[in-house]
Order: sequence, then structure tokens, then C-alpha cells
Amino acid sequence: MVETTIAFAGSGLDRADHVRSDPEQLAGLMNWRARLLKLDGIDPVIADDGGLAWGTLADADPTAELVFLGLSEDGRGCFAEVNPGLIGSVAPPNPRLWQAMSMLPGAELATYGGARSLVDWHARHRFCAKCGSPTTLAKGGWQRNCTNEACKAEHYPRVDPVTIMLVECDGELLLGRQPRFPPKRYSALAGFVEPGESIEEAVAREVFEEAGVKARDVIYVASQPWPFPSSLMIGCCAVADDKTIVIDKTELDDARWFTRAEVEQAMSGDESGAFIAPPPFAVAHHLLKWWLQR
Amino acid sequence: MVETTIAFAGSGLDRADHVRSDPEQLAGLMNWRARLLKLDGIDPVIADDGGLAWGTLADADPTAELVFLGLSEDGRGCFAEVNPGLIGSVAPPNPRLWQAMSMLPGAELATYGGARSLVDWHARHRFCAKCGSPTTLAKGGWQRNCTNEACKAEHYPRVDPVTIMLVECDGELLLGRQPRFPPKRYSALAGFVEPGESIEEAVAREVFEEAGVKARDVIYVASQPWPFPSSLMIGCCAVADDKTIVIDKTELDDARWFTRAEVEQAMSGDESGAFIAPPPFAVAHHLLKWWLQR
Ligand SMILES: [Zn+2]
Ligand SMILES: [Zn+2]
Repeated sequence: MVETTIAFAGSGLDRADHVRSDPEQLAGLMNWRARLLKLDGIDPVIADDGGLAWGTLADADPTAELVFLGLSEDGRGCFAEVNPGLIGSVAPPNPRLWQAMSMLPGAELATYGGARSLVDWHARHRFCAKCGSPTTLAKGGWQRNCTNEACKAEHYPRVDPVTIMLVECDGELLLGRQPRFPPKRYSALAGFVEPGESIEEAVAREVFEEAGVKARDVIYVASQPWPFPSSLMIGCCAVADDKTIVIDKTELDDARWFTRAEVEQAMSGDESGAFIAPPPFAVAHHLLKWWLQR
Repeated sequence: MVETTIAFAGSGLDRADHVRSDPEQLAGLMNWRARLLKLDGIDPVIADDGGLAWGTLADADPTAELVFLGLSEDGRGCFAEVNPGLIGSVAPPNPRLWQAMSMLPGAELATYGGARSLVDWHARHRFCAKCGSPTTLAKGGWQRNCTNEACKAEHYPRVDPVTIMLVECDGELLLGRQPRFPPKRYSALAGFVEPGESIEEAVAREVFEEAGVKARDVIYVASQPWPFPSSLMIGCCAVADDKTIVIDKTELDDARWFTRAEVEQAMSGDESGAFIAPPPFAVAHHLLKWWLQR
């Protein structure tokens, strides 16, 4: 288990999921005490105290759908709006977003991340995948229902499991560079878990596909909700017996083995060494920290 | 790590994911040597040798979409068809299905499970959730693309992460009964991971929601792809300090603490004891086995 805090985990809100299926209780929470998460598009708004900015439900667009995020510690309903301006077109993460998020305390960052995933899902899931009819928000935003009486399909927010893994051989670590990375950045290899495979199988498949390395003895290390748009990062560590690398150039720019000293230097924040470590937001950062500490 | 085989994991097929994005290579594999998984609706057909029955692509409905499952050990393309009869209405698991699956060798069961998840996804995802337009199969069935030129959204098969957990207190285990369980069956509590939470948070939330028990020190034990329709079961074990149970009657019929002797008796197959154990197909069965062995 990693001792340090994982970014985007640890929200202080109580999800109070029983409220979602109780229309009366939910309506009761939508009162003058309720808090509405302020969003700039889908990006967070930072309050004067350095935390998330909140308003009241009166601030919401009257036509917007409202998502129930949970209860605050003082029992107030917390909501986010699916602003009509977001529908069909959510802006991708940008440098200003990363800067705003880096200012937030951990619990607030987690609350924002969960809200972002949910609002983004509503913005991009307006229609029934089964029959093509419009859907409407249900259960406080934790469901959308098909409006076609002959279909009535229920749809749930997506969470996509992703494996992300360190691979060790002779005390060295396999890390890779995606084409979109800044110069010198290397990080853990990663890939979506597919239907029909376990976490352990997904780890071995990804390492072999991307770097041609056979990995065995997969262990689980830590997990992280990643709100771009809605992944569950499953951090693992595996062992390899052969260091020969065959890079899949459609996935990676490069993949290399790094010594413990090289990993230590990068994780100390020194950018003059063999590589630059993944940022603290990333679960890969925690995997490297865990590997150095164990 | 659980030593015994996990049902639905361990397919012998090579997913060969580079083939999916290479139309020429994919077309080249759709030859007379290619194998088509025989399905009865979406249920498996058992061959005379006790394994999955396969035909050739000539057996497919000419209007059916074909999904590329992977390469067999002798390099043949393996496919499944999204039969037009399945579209919009996939039959739920039935006793005949469970019986057929129990006859299959482990690797074949895994191949079937992955195929089932994928075919079911295509049958229930004919339209674009973003704009409502029809979608078409792409990348050998590992993607569907929106046909609306103004949208062009890409959609990927869903995998829903589910946490399933043992909770231990004073050497006893917390297990629960869902209303749909056969008489005397108790199993591990479980629930979907939601946007904005880690595996560890999801475990603690579910245990508290369903049984009112506060769980800490969550560890990961094993995972399983579960093809009904497409879950990733993430098996964990946690610790509790207080045995007081408050059951959420909308989720559970009952929840109780069981002694080690009671778990041993149930796992030995003796149905005369305190409870009946979950079947070997279920990852909960492996969690209990792991708990007794560790
Ligand atoms: Zn519908
Ligand atoms: Zn579309």
C-alpha cells in the first residue's frame, strides 16, 4: 500500500447513495442551503480561500440538469450542473486547468475530479446507445433513462479500468515515452483493460504489445480515479526475465530500462538526469515512490 | 495471489491488437481457414470434444457484423458474429448456460466470456450516445464509429469495474445474501466502482452502505473478467473493528459474520452447515479459498 495521498482520491463528500433513489429526500436537499459547484466550462473555479468555489442552486442555468455529488460534512446537498453549453462538446484538459488543480487541497481535488467525470458523462451521453432516442437524467445524475417507451434502457456513468505498470528486471525499471509527453519525460506503461481479461492478463498483454517484454508475477500496488474523462487507474508492478525491448512505434516514442540511481535522481526533482519523472498528480509518480521505498 | 485458476480468465487466444487497426491484415485473416465461434443466441455451443464449437465464416449470417476475437495458436483468425437476431435484445444468463459453461475447459470458457461481452456490447450499442445517429463496427469490433459526419464520435466496449470484498473482524468473515440468491447462499459483498473513487474507497463505501460496517486496510487479492455483461471483478479483503451490522434491505436480504469453521465447512461443499458457499465460477469462491489458505 502506498502511504502518500493519491491525487483525485479522498473526497470529503458523503456520496449518500440512498438519497439518489429517494426523490423526496433528493428534492428536500435541493433547498436554499444546497451548494452548487462553480465551474468555468468544465474547469474548476478557485475561491479566495484556495478551495473550490461554491454557489447556491439559484446560480444554476434554469434549464440545466443537476447532478447530486453527495453531502457535505454539515449535511448540505452538493450539486453540479450540466450546463447546456457543455452538451456535446467538453474541452480537453489544458495548462490552465492543471494549474488550477495544483492549487486545490487533496479532498477538494477529489470532489472536483468526481464531479468532472460525471458532468462530462452527461454532456456526452444524451442519447440511448440501444435505440437512439433521447435520454433524461435520473437518480440524481447517477443514471440516464431512455425516453422511448418501447426501450426504457437504463444507462450508468462509465468508469474505464486502465492498468498502469512498473516492470522490473535485474533491479532496473522499464519506462516508456508517449509521443505527447514533454521532452525527457518517461513514465509507466499503461493501457485499458479489455472485455475478457483479468488485471494480471491486461498488464502482461500491454507490456508485451508496447515493449515486446514478457512480464510475470504481477502484483497490485495502488489505484486512482482519473477524471479525463473517467478512468480507474490500477497501478501494478511486474517482473521480467529478459531486457530485450521491441517498441510498438504506434504507441510509444521510446522505452528504456532505468537504474535505481536514475529513478532516484528523477524522483528527487532533478531534471538533469537520465529522464524526467511523471508529475505528482499521476499514479505513476506514486508507483515510482513505492518502488524506491519498498 | 490466488494459485487456483480464476474462471473466465486465461483465454488461449492472442488478442493481436495490432491487427485491429490494420484493415489489410484483418481482411487477410478472414479467409477459408478463419474460425467462427458457434453461438446459440449468445450462449455457447459445445462440440463433441467438450470444447467450444467453431465453424467457418461461411456459417455467418451474410448481414451480420463480425468481431475479431484474436488468433488461435496455429495463427488462424477467430471471429464471432453479431447476429441480427441479437440486436437490441440479449437473453439474460439461464440455467442451461451455466451448465454448458461448467463443461468447458478454463481457456475455452475465457474465450467464450470475452466473446460474449463483446457481442453483447455490439447488440446493445447501435447508436451514438452523443448525437443519437447510427454507429458502425470498426477496428475488428473493438470500436464503433458514429456515422454522422458532424459528430464522428468513437465508442469503445465497456468494462465496468466492480469491487467484491471479504471483511474480517476477530477472525470472522462478513458475508451477505442478495435477494436473488438460492436458499442459504452467502457471498462476498460487492458493488460498482463509481467515478471519482479509488478501489480502496469503493470497498469501504460498499461495506458501509450495505452492512453499516466500517472497513479499513483494504488489500487487493485477485481479479476476474465477468461477462454478464462486462464487469471486471476486483477481489479485495478488508478489516473491521466493530461487528455491529446495519443491513441495507434494498440491497441485501441478510448479512452475517461467519467463523473460520463455518467457512471451512461451506467451502468443503457441505451444504448442511451455516451457509452454502458461492460457486467455483465466482471470484468470491476464490477469495474464500485464499482466506482459508493464507
Ligand atoms: Zn432506448
Ligand atoms: Zn454521433
